[in-house]
Amino acid sequence: MIDFVLDKQLEADTAAIGRLMLCEVCLLDDSRFPWLVLVPRRREIVEIIDLTMDERALLMEEVTGAARALKSITECYKLNIAALGNQVRQLHIHVIARFENDAAWPAPVWGKGARVPYQVKARDDLVVKVRQALGVV
Amino acid sequence: MIDFVLDKQLEADTAAIGRLMLCEVCLLDDSRFPWLVLVPRRREIVEIIDLTMDERALLMEEVTGAARALKSITECYKLNIAALGNQVRQLHIHVIARFENDAAWPAPVWGKGARVPYQVKARDDLVVKVRQALGVV
Repeated sequence: MIDFVLDKQLEADTAAIGRLMLCEVCLLDDSRFPWLVLVPRRREIVEIIDLTMDERALLMEEVTGAARALKSITECYKLNIAALGNQVRQLHIHVIARFENDAAWPAPVWGKGARVPYQVKARDDLVVKVRQALGVV
Repeated sequence: MIDFVLDKQLEADTAAIGRLMLCEVCLLDDSRFPWLVLVPRRREIVEIIDLTMDERALLMEEVTGAARALKSITECYKLNIAALGNQVRQLHIHVIARFENDAAWPAPVWGKGARVPYQVKARDDLVVKVRQALGVV
């Protein structure tokens, strides 16, 4: 998939973490919620149902790995996992660590005020922790 | 899993559609959004990551089947697929047909006003269509 290009909005809103077999893993730059985004490197795929069965199985395991990493790092109360794509069409899966005292609880995180970008060091520290947990460089 | 019991809130908000190998399939009783809920028959499971790998693969395929059925029946513009569980702890996966003119577009559907229950005939007709598409009784 040489010609895969990350959606411009996703690129603007995230920091790169690394590359799994199927997905690019990014950190959404919103310090209110520890939030990963997994993007399968498949051109012009909008829906999970448009992946092949093998790709879907791999996606499930990569999402599971990302969710476990996030839970282990953050000790969150709940995971939220979602493929919405109403605004950014390129298929991407949200993996979000939720806490009972976070800025949106118990509502979903989308559309709850403006992003609060990380301080650079905090963001870089979290990126490193996720890389280590996922075993990616 | 003889002792699996559907969460009381899910039971109150949905109509039963049928039983897949892993999941109960229900129709959320909100006529604003064609909306299925898949509930793995596994007691005390809260997160996808707590299923076994085989269960996760099966879940992915059952979600895919439900999403394809819903898309085929509704000719929706977008699918929204999510496991949130911030309010109902029992693991359940939302599969929602979205339209560019629906009551929440482009926002997610959760927390957007009150449910608008179906008229009985409309609900029963949709249940029958989903059953036929999924091959369940």
